[in-house]
This record gives sequence, C-alpha cells and structure tokens, in this order.
Amino acid sequence: MTQLEQARKGVITPAMQHVAQVEKMDPELLRGGVADGTIVVPLNNSHTKISPVGIGKGLSIKVNANFGTSGDQADLEEELLKLQAAIDAKADTIMDLSTGGDINGVRRAVMERSSVPVGTVPIYQAAVEAVQNRGGIIHMTPDLMFSGVEDHARDGVDFMTIHAGVTLAALERLRLQGRTTDIVSRGGAFLATWMLYHKKENPFYDSYDRLLSVAREHDITLSLGDGLRPGSLADATDRAQIQELLTLGELAQRAWDAGVQVIIEGPGHVPLDQVEAQVILQKKLCGGAPFYVLGPLVTDVAAGHDHIACAIGGAVAGMAGADFLCYVTPSEHLKLPSVEDVREGVIAARIAAHAADIARGHRGAIDRDKEMSKARKCLNWDRQISLAIDPQKAQAYRADSKPSSDDVCTMCGEFCAIKIVRDYFGS
Amino acid sequence: MTQLEQARKGVITPAMQHVAQVEKMDPELLRGGVADGTIVVPLNNSHTKISPVGIGKGLSIKVNANFGTSGDQADLEEELLKLQAAIDAKADTIMDLSTGGDINGVRRAVMERSSVPVGTVPIYQAAVEAVQNRGGIIHMTPDLMFSGVEDHARDGVDFMTIHAGVTLAALERLRLQGRTTDIVSRGGAFLATWMLYHKKENPFYDSYDRLLSVAREHDITLSLGDGLRPGSLADATDRAQIQELLTLGELAQRAWDAGVQVIIEGPGHVPLDQVEAQVILQKKLCGGAPFYVLGPLVTDVAAGHDHIACAIGGAVAGMAGADFLCYVTPSEHLKLPSVEDVREGVIAARIAAHAADIARGHRGAIDRDKEMSKARKCLNWDRQISLAIDPQKAQAYRADSKPSSDDVCTMCGEFCAIKIVRDYFGS
Repeated sequence: MTQLEQARKGVITPAMQHVAQVEKMDPELLRGGVADGTIVVPLNNSHTKISPVGIGKGLSIKVNANFGTSGDQADLEEELLKLQAAIDAKADTIMDLSTGGDINGVRRAVMERSSVPVGTVPIYQAAVEAVQNRGGIIHMTPDLMFSGVEDHARDGVDFMTIHAGVTLAALERLRLQGRTTDIVSRGGAFLATWMLYHKKENPFYDSYDRLLSVAREHDITLSLGDGLRPGSLADATDRAQIQELLTLGELAQRAWDAGVQVIIEGPGHVPLDQVEAQVILQKKLCGGAPFYVLGPLVTDVAAGHDHIACAIGGAVAGMAGADFLCYVTPSEHLKLPSVEDVREGVIAARIAAHAADIARGHRGAIDRDKEMSKARKCLNWDRQISLAIDPQKAQAYRADSKPSSDDVCTMCGEFCAIKIVRDYFGS
Repeated sequence: MTQLEQARKGVITPAMQHVAQVEKMDPELLRGGVADGTIVVPLNNSHTKISPVGIGKGLSIKVNANFGTSGDQADLEEELLKLQAAIDAKADTIMDLSTGGDINGVRRAVMERSSVPVGTVPIYQAAVEAVQNRGGIIHMTPDLMFSGVEDHARDGVDFMTIHAGVTLAALERLRLQGRTTDIVSRGGAFLATWMLYHKKENPFYDSYDRLLSVAREHDITLSLGDGLRPGSLADATDRAQIQELLTLGELAQRAWDAGVQVIIEGPGHVPLDQVEAQVILQKKLCGGAPFYVLGPLVTDVAAGHDHIACAIGGAVAGMAGADFLCYVTPSEHLKLPSVEDVREGVIAARIAAHAADIARGHRGAIDRDKEMSKARKCLNWDRQISLAIDPQKAQAYRADSKPSSDDVCTMCGEFCAIKIVRDYFGS
C-alpha cells in the first residue's frame, strides 16, 4: 500500500512518524494531510537510504536542487560533487536531470549516495535513447516512454516529473493564442514534437492508468509537470498554461482515486503581480494538491543572477501558499551549473522559503531570526555565524576583514550603533 | 529658488526637462509631481557635474548604493573603485557614508568623480569629530551637527539623511515597548546617545527651521532618516517605528511649506507579510512623499547573502509603491563591502526594482524582457548577453562553458527545448 492508501486507512507509517517529528506536528494531523492529498511524503517503497520528507499544507516550505549531466558535459564525479553541495547547503530533495553520458550510471550513483528524496524526469531518457539509437526524438515509442518510468521506479526514484498535461487540445490552444517563447520545458518539447509529428495524443495522458499502475506499485509520487509553462513574462497566465493546469487538476484527482501521491508543477517566468494569482488558481483547480514552483522568475533579463529573480518569485509564491520551491542557479539560461552555482542556488531558494515560512506564520520559523537578532545585540559573532543560513560564507567574510576591536565589524568599526547603545545605556 | 519652488510657479527647469526625457514622460506631468512633493529631483544648486535623476510617483524605481570608509578601513582609492563599480552597475544615486580617515577628502573626491546624485549623512561627521577631538559622542554640540550639514551643502551634496524624527517622545515609546535590537541606525544611535545623556531634544527636530533654511539655500533634498528603524524582524512595525514615522510625516509637510524637497526613509528588517502595509502606511502618513527603503530584509539570518533578502523585500515594497531602493551588499552585517560586493549589491537591487516596475505596469518596463525572450527564441546569444542586466557576468558564464553547438548552451546541449521546437516546427 502507498503512503496515501495507508493514511486513508488511518495508519501512521514510520515515514509519517518521522516527518511529523521533524515538522514538530501532531502525527495524526500529518496523516490527515497525506490522506486528503494536501501533503505528500515522496518515498519509493524500495528506497531505504533516505530520511523521508513531507511536502504540503501546514509544513515548512521545501527546496529542491536540480543537477545532472548534459551531452556537452557528462562527468559523473562532477555531478556527485553537486549532489554533495546541494545536501551540504540543505536542499530538502534533489532531482537528477541527466541527459548525457551514462545516464543510468549517474542515476544509480546518485540513488546510492543521496540522503534526501530523489526525483527524475524519465522522458529525458526515452528521448536520449531515441536520438542515440533510432535517429531522432520522433522515434520515441510509448513503450520506450513507459519503460523509462519503470526503470527509474525499480531503481528506487521517489518522485517523477511526468508531463501528462501536454495534450493535443492544450497545444492547439497554444497555437491559437501564439506565444513569445512557445515551449521551454524539455519534457514538454520532447512530447509535443512526438505528438505533432505523429498526430497522436500524449501517451502519458492517453495511457494515464498505465502510469498510475506503475506509480502505485512503487509508491512513486507523481509530479505532474507543466510542459507548457511560460518561458517569458509575456507568456505567463495565458490560455495554454491554464488549459494545461485544468488538465493537471483532473489528473491529480485520478491519481488520488488510484491511491497515488501527487504534486503539481508550476512556472516558470511570471510577473511579480501575477504570482499570488497563480498560486490561488493552482490550489483551487487542483484540489489543494501541493504546488511545486520552478522559480517563478520575476524578470527575463537576470541571466547570471537568476537565483535572485527566482528568490523574489519563490518567496512571494511561498507566502501565497506554494509548498515546494525548485531552485534556479546563477547559471540558468547560460550553462550547466557548476558545484558553486548549485550551492548558491540552494541558499537563495532557502532564503525565499524561510522568508515565506515567516510570512505565513509557520510555527517556529521566526525563532532562528530572533536568536540571530539577540546574538547581534550581544555582539556575539560566533553565534551570529553559526545561526547564519550559510555559516561558511559568513565566516569567510568575517575572516576576510579583521576589525580592530573583536566586538564590532569593519562596516562601522567603533561607530557600531549596537556597541554605542550598549556602552552608553548598558542595554 | 529650489526645484520645488520653481515647479510650484509653473517653471519646468532644465533638470526637470532632462528627467522627463529620461523617463519618457510629459514634462508638465513631472513638474506637477515635483510641485506636489510626490517627486523629487535631488540636485544641489551648485552641483553641475551630474545628470539629474527623478525619484517618486510615476517614475521608474531608483537604486542607491552606499559605500565609504570606516575607522577600520579608510582607503580613498578603494572607495573610488566602489564608486566606479556602483556607477558601472547602473546605480541611480550613491551615498558616501565615510566615518574613517580623511572624511572631507573622501567626500570631495567622490563629489568630483560622481556622475550621479550624491547623498551623505552629516551627523556621522559631527560624531567622528566629537570622538576624535573632544573625547566622545556626547561631546557633539548642536553647532557641530549643523556645521556638518553646512559643510556638506557647500560641497555640493544633493541629498542628506537627517534623523530628525528621533525625538525624546519616540525614545520613550521605544523604552516602554522594549525591543530585540533597540537602535541599529548609526545616526539614530549617535543622536539618541547625545539626547539621553544631555536630557535634551534632538537638535534637528528642535531647530528644524534652521535645517530647512540650509536645505532651501542649497536645494538639498532632505532624506528624513528612520533612526528607529527595526533592526530585526521582531521589532518591525512597532510603536517606536510608527511614532517616528508620524513625526517624519509632519516634518515632510514643514519641508514642503518651506520650499524644500523631501523623501522619507524606511526599514530595515521587516517580515514579508508586513512589507506592503509599511508602504501603505508611509504613503498615507507622509502625504505621498517618495519612500526610500533600506531593504527591507525579509529575514535576519541571511548574513553573507543579505543582498538576496533585500531583493525579495525591495521587490515587494516596490510593487506596493516604494520609489527608491537602497541596496544591501552580501557583506552587510559582516564587514565593509568590497568592490565586488558593491557590484553584486547594485545588481540585486536593480533586479528587484525592475521586477517591481514590471509588476506596477510601469511604461516600457517589460519591453527589455520581451526583447530578451525574443532573443532566446532565436537562440541569439550575443543579443541575450547584451540585454542581460549584468552582461559582464552573463558573458563570463557563457565563455566559461563552451557548448558543442553555438546554437545552444551546455545546460541542455542538443536537447534544448527551444532548438527542438524550432527545428521541428520552424517557429
């Protein structure tokens, strides 16, 4: 039985027990959230190497880090360093998006080493194999697509992005409306290419029950991908995007009916004033399923600093109710991220998630900030560094610029406001 | 006559003409905004080396960069490199906050070289001189405070932070309520120390007319500082902060009555869910005067990455109506910023300002994003780089990771969604 099915039967599984303890919440409340689909615990039933993580209503906002090889850069050791960097920076989950080199080998090595839930996008594998062995993406077959899902499921993958909402109807709506950047999701592009060439429906939509059966067998959490997500501000909240979201809402319901855990993926590039509306819409149209946003990026022009554009959108989305933030690194739109890019991306997304947790009044979220502020008032620098979201960088900055008095920092030196107030008033 | 007085008389000055042209707006509309105080054009009437900048209602959101020496690091050349880095990264204004070494020399060198309006905080000078020549901050005198203002005015400074709202009544309110971090503004701390020791009112409040007279003579734009701004999330929107804001609203009205341009400074550290309320409150209590926010930082724990915490708060404040964002660098709370920290701080604040401009539907703001998205669709990399908010970093990232095909980048390589869609559908 899946976590969802057990929750419905009133069973608090060890995974739920663990999550409830981490989240400092009543296990019965957590079980209720899993049962009604507003919380997921992505955990392949053969995956024993990880600490389970909960994502959804009433839980702290979680952060995912993507990495993986490409055809241009396929170095297993480098990707494993990125895995370690993501985990060290406290990503809650990771996704292996490899499309180059020995894809199976990378995934298995990641599964072997990850201490957090692992996600993948199996359609990438079908596309890569079709290109390498059959001469093109159009030579994918439904069986190849499903065998990718099955392979990943057997390897123990905990959650999978499946772009089942890229339907012929949604593509037609996209064509009718027109777009600035058409399709920017790789999975969406692979499927659309295949569908339009063959004039056939998306196999993941057409044979969705087959997908649900694999997902149920292994307790895969389906992350219903937004293959038509806007890739530019101009395309945000357009009819193609919302058509796909309607479909994803229906597919979420069918997943629940089949006992399968499900989350919904969201954009992408969205002007800041539309971010809250996007979250409200997803929550209403998809029955309260957890919302997993990629950004959203609030400008198209921040290449080199897209982790910042992402942190702005992610914080506002989180405040509005998004549950799960996919990081974006500074190298987005420009290159495969380096190990350092991965680190920076996770930290930026964690700042956004934490700011949103505080804004939502999430239990205990502000406690760390209060402790930090007390440490500031006491001019206790060791404690400030240990409380920083990135103690490593905070320590490096402080070490880099030695103040003449250990009490202060070189920004204000002896004119430190806090020191002055303390020295004069002893407060 | 000041810009404000001329605007009231119906005169469109050359400075207003220039600003209207840059902002692509009707000069008469701009003049109206200056006349009613919702727009300022900070421009000392003896300062001829700069391009005037407009700040306020209906204009694009502006970004300020702070730098300057401290007692621990007082290297003129380094500070001039920061000035250049800030201007290269397209800061709209800069502030010289020097408190170490040859303060007058640094300020005059900055005035000599800056192509953008320059702000200062004259109380720093009075405090430094009192410590160096008289043995302590409490030995400042009202005349020393005012002579700092006069010296800076004569040097051509365009806008000055004056903490005239730190009154005995506000300090008493702070004491009654209690705070996590008391006073974190340097100017606020200097004045409070002096006031509480001497049991006297703030000279800038007590002799506000004297201040207005200097400001009017040189057409200094007063930036009424929030000496009691919250230095931690826990202190945000407390009675001491709002008491000071009430006073600043009254002082803004008196500035207008005296023909003096004025902007209001705001926090600081503010939970994300309170940011919009802060802006609404400032606009209502201060008669629509431009709002100049320092951050706000939406968490206390982002030391080493506070430019990101600032970008989140700044974007949301901007969307809500803030007019002017003071950057925060990654080194905030840890050390005096390096040249690279200054660069990163300006870029992060510009991303926030731009995202907010788009969210407010500011004329033309989204055009650059549309151009970028078109360049992405065409896989035109040179154009993408030139449209990036930081072409230097975008170029470095691309050069650092050479794709096998010039069409794509190493993130997806041949599996680039945009390339696939183009190759199959020729769109």
